[in-house]
Amino acid sequence: MESIDKVNGTFGKRPIEQKTNVSSAVIRRLPRYHRCLGELLRAGKLRISSAELSAIMDVTASQIRQDLNCFGGFGQQGYGYNIKFLYNKISELLGVDEGYNAVIIGAGKLGRALAATHMFERRGVNRLAMFDIDPSVIGTRIYDVPVYSIEELGKFCKENNVHIGVLTVPKEAAYEVTNVIVEAGVKGIWNFANMELRLDNPDVIVENIHLGDSLMTLCYEIKTANEKREQND
Amino acid sequence: MESIDKVNGTFGKRPIEQKTNVSSAVIRRLPRYHRCLGELLRAGKLRISSAELSAIMDVTASQIRQDLNCFGGFGQQGYGYNIKFLYNKISELLGVDEGYNAVIIGAGKLGRALAATHMFERRGVNRLAMFDIDPSVIGTRIYDVPVYSIEELGKFCKENNVHIGVLTVPKEAAYEVTNVIVEAGVKGIWNFANMELRLDNPDVIVENIHLGDSLMTLCYEIKTANEKREQND
Repeated sequence: MESIDKVNGTFGKRPIEQKTNVSSAVIRRLPRYHRCLGELLRAGKLRISSAELSAIMDVTASQIRQDLNCFGGFGQQGYGYNIKFLYNKISELLGVDEGYNAVIIGAGKLGRALAATHMFERRGVNRLAMFDIDPSVIGTRIYDVPVYSIEELGKFCKENNVHIGVLTVPKEAAYEVTNVIVEAGVKGIWNFANMELRLDNPDVIVENIHLGDSLMTLCYEIKTANEKREQND
Repeated sequence: MESIDKVNGTFGKRPIEQKTNVSSAVIRRLPRYHRCLGELLRAGKLRISSAELSAIMDVTASQIRQDLNCFGGFGQQGYGYNIKFLYNKISELLGVDEGYNAVIIGAGKLGRALAATHMFERRGVNRLAMFDIDPSVIGTRIYDVPVYSIEELGKFCKENNVHIGVLTVPKEAAYEVTNVIVEAGVKGIWNFANMELRLDNPDVIVENIHLGDSLMTLCYEIKTANEKREQND
């Protein structure tokens, strides 16, 4: 029951605290705006109307105007929004490009897959290092990220001002690793360890990722759609 | 603008349709119940009180009683809930163990990482095959899953009654691959291609995964917590 008894706290995402005049509901939509605007920028587009953005985002144009006005993104009649301005403003609000430092703990399949993505750089997060217990990977580089021994984890985090720990360790090891990095000053944990990580320390933010829940939801929706089709036949 | 223009529809999860007397809000909580009850079962526990489950789930005991009563999970005073019964009932409601067949499209880093997990078996989903364009992996097995040429994708899906396509291809290839599998009868798409997949076909369910949005939310929460600490200092 060890693993279960620890799982007795906040599930899923913590509520976002309202620090500016931007509501938490707007904040929750910002990563999507950021993603869409980033794609538009990369496609060379400079301006966009709320109607166009509405079609892309599947949010009403009026909702978009409301959302963007919250942080000074005022469109001009017949001219639209400046995409670069909005993108930068949202980046700033979200803490992108704060230059946060991250380490990936666990150099297994998932750790490697995460190291390989552009997800971190795109959000201005530096992947400084990976940590593992396997002597055959320690001392190597995985997608140009150096792999160190888990023994050096705490010291490394302290000395390199690490903000984010990405947990891809087996769930049995999650609390032990978490204690080490929190002790070393890490303030955010991105948890892929397939268990709900619950900390008593209110200073540490945890984002639990449960891909399996998403797979289940998909199965449920397929089943429901099938039942509906059978009823209609 | 090609990649953007396609992105003009439903974002995120579709609303779940209510097919039984179980509300969609309850359904959304079911994967979490399922996960917790599964861990309890594996730990050898047979019964649990709503108070204990409440502590584990961080949901009030009264909410738990309400949720579970929805589908006939009646606890007995001083005796608690039968964990196996609840687990099986939730599995059935969610469409777990419907024996759905899945293929993973893209045998790159993420595809391999997904193939390596127990996520599919745990939810009764069969990983039948992987597909790629790289001749050096075609014909091999990755974690015992055979890898075939992408050329065979449509034929394979038709002949093997594939229900779920897991997309881990580059986003540029996502629509092409999707057309092939939908044409071959696939009804559910689990999309990791880092773009919003939007289909006109209402018979096909899409679950878009955006890990990057979660990383952004984490950055935002770290930033907000920092600002709060600075204000309090």
